[in-house]
Amino acid sequence: MHVLILGADGYLGWPTAMYFSQKGWNVTAVDNYFRRNACTELDVGMLYPLPSLQERAQLWYELTGHEIKVIIGDIAEPEICRSLFTGTRPYNWAKDTSFTGLPEVIVHYAEQPSAPYSLLNYHYADVTVTNNLRVTNNLMFAVRDLCPTAHLVKLGTMGEYGTPNIDIEEGWIDIEHKGRKDTFLFPRQASSLYHTTKIMDTDLLWFGTRTWNLRVTDLMQGPVYGIDTYESEQNERLRTLFNYDEIFGTVINRFITQAIAGYPLTVYGKGGQQRGYINIKDTLQCVYKAAENPPDAGRLKIYNQIMETYSVNELAELTQKAARKAGYKVTINHIDNPRKEAEDHYYNPQHQGLLDLGVLPHYLTEESMLEMIRTVEKFRKNIRKDVIFRGIKW
Amino acid sequence: MHVLILGADGYLGWPTAMYFSQKGWNVTAVDNYFRRNACTELDVGMLYPLPSLQERAQLWYELTGHEIKVIIGDIAEPEICRSLFTGTRPYNWAKDTSFTGLPEVIVHYAEQPSAPYSLLNYHYADVTVTNNLRVTNNLMFAVRDLCPTAHLVKLGTMGEYGTPNIDIEEGWIDIEHKGRKDTFLFPRQASSLYHTTKIMDTDLLWFGTRTWNLRVTDLMQGPVYGIDTYESEQNERLRTLFNYDEIFGTVINRFITQAIAGYPLTVYGKGGQQRGYINIKDTLQCVYKAAENPPDAGRLKIYNQIMETYSVNELAELTQKAARKAGYKVTINHIDNPRKEAEDHYYNPQHQGLLDLGVLPHYLTEESMLEMIRTVEKFRKNIRKDVIFRGIKW
Repeated sequence: MHVLILGADGYLGWPTAMYFSQKGWNVTAVDNYFRRNACTELDVGMLYPLPSLQERAQLWYELTGHEIKVIIGDIAEPEICRSLFTGTRPYNWAKDTSFTGLPEVIVHYAEQPSAPYSLLNYHYADVTVTNNLRVTNNLMFAVRDLCPTAHLVKLGTMGEYGTPNIDIEEGWIDIEHKGRKDTFLFPRQASSLYHTTKIMDTDLLWFGTRTWNLRVTDLMQGPVYGIDTYESEQNERLRTLFNYDEIFGTVINRFITQAIAGYPLTVYGKGGQQRGYINIKDTLQCVYKAAENPPDAGRLKIYNQIMETYSVNELAELTQKAARKAGYKVTINHIDNPRKEAEDHYYNPQHQGLLDLGVLPHYLTEESMLEMIRTVEKFRKNIRKDVIFRGIKW
Repeated sequence: MHVLILGADGYLGWPTAMYFSQKGWNVTAVDNYFRRNACTELDVGMLYPLPSLQERAQLWYELTGHEIKVIIGDIAEPEICRSLFTGTRPYNWAKDTSFTGLPEVIVHYAEQPSAPYSLLNYHYADVTVTNNLRVTNNLMFAVRDLCPTAHLVKLGTMGEYGTPNIDIEEGWIDIEHKGRKDTFLFPRQASSLYHTTKIMDTDLLWFGTRTWNLRVTDLMQGPVYGIDTYESEQNERLRTLFNYDEIFGTVINRFITQAIAGYPLTVYGKGGQQRGYINIKDTLQCVYKAAENPPDAGRLKIYNQIMETYSVNELAELTQKAARKAGYKVTINHIDNPRKEAEDHYYNPQHQGLLDLGVLPHYLTEESMLEMIRTVEKFRKNIRKDVIFRGIKW
């Protein structure tokens, strides 16, 4: 079995590549280094330096004997995207890379993944919309034309749903209106431009799926936390990137780093914002289980990829407790909310589908937080306090 | 009052520019000549040659004394889009054009408007997604940053709703689910890529509207028919473009031309596809009435811009009857549906909002069809039968 991982240099991409490789799959890892370049451009810092994708693939091969093939190119460009399925590399190809064959599964992470980045200013908004929509659309056409039976596993986000005043189902809802009934995509209304591009992705893929009988799974994931996975524990240079800044750092990763750095935990507004969270180890299980269970042709399968829900206040308090055990005194600082979002709302998302496929959750506990603290504090001297908060507003 | 018309060289753009100008508004007409260039590139023919936007503005000025200022540039590019609101023209500006001042109203037609174009192949799909989303997004940010109190009147499409099995409301629906309630955008599920980009536009603008208190009206328009408007009747060189081909021609305009050319009316499949239709004269009324009635800041107002509904079979029969009166013998040819769409479905869209604002409908009748036939047959020798049907499939 052959899997293409698109966005393989990202926070989830590289661990996913190792996970499939470890399971015996042929893995082709594709990226244009968008994320690491953006981190450099915006000077957000990373907790530790990141070897290139090729260097990590080489190390992985030396340690395990499994080969991960690496392709560097921008698949927002349709000709480059299509070359993944034909091997015919277009003119703008820096390095000769051989054709790795048609995949059975395509994992699509190849998007700009940050809400604050998407709202830094109009330029970054344009980059986000252009990149995310072009990649998804050009990929959809490439699959339709060149690899129509492949299973496309797309990373969506729980943020597509926003915080409605009704229970959030897994992607679909039956509506009865004036005595008639139909089934629709669950209504979606996101609180950032980035999250809105994910709504648009879902609309695109649902159009393509039902029109051309594609097989697509859309994974509505909540914020991920964590560093190590079982694969990366073999060598620290196999670790995925770790951001703790306001732009690319997810909240739990940020809070842990702030606790270690002696930087008060920044809670936006009342802190009653509830979200669904997931450990990076469970992301890998979820993506793999989803990949192994393709929907019928023409069906868009949607899972809510979270394991538990927390409010920001609860996360801050849990971080405080865990950090105290490690000897850190942590304060919590409620600041004026720089975002337009509900700070106190109903939130009841269903998330049974992936558990039914056999995913075994790692829950967030003081112990698991303490474990993350022990890893992050090894790099304590690298933490830059100046990048933690920049006050990006919308 | 000052209105920016974006996409002013298009089928609706130019008549809208004249309509506002006639009403005494200062009009700035903006286009990048996408539509006429695409017609040339794809060799689809037009019923008669089209003077440039500048030539038409000059003629309009000579006839009425009203000035329509013309700006040629591609507003998918953020710097060019923003220059409309600052007057600071970026480097890629061919002709010096002075700043026309901030508008009170912006009418946004600046999109690739054809479903078959969007699905010709992956290249045209990429062009459609990139153009339509970038224009809407960059315009939204330009308005937010530079002209936040302006009223943005956006052309959407009834095609966003598709053909659901429930009544179609004007943009919004109250949903009760498991004992709880909320209000959402009406569920949307379109039958082409082009129509899907319009769904995405609505999602984008709803995000911007509620986040930054913009004023946006989204007009869900059905297929438009017609040629002359009251303004264009002053001189035939003021007429808007007229396409009768499969890519850019709307169904009634195509049927009338086919009847005159002795080309059987091509009905896709069973012909039970129902849609809402509108005369081009009513489009102008609707856009104007909508412009005059801005929503409160932070509200997205949605109108369903149609005057009546017909099935394709009914349109074919009406064309046949009207053409018979003009001496044409017309046959109807049911062909295998080249599209994936329901051919027999429930369809009950609400469309009271614009009537409540005072729009006075022109309905489709044998007489109004006969009038169109009399205009189109003046150009009978220009009609190219080879461009009427190309068999574009999806």
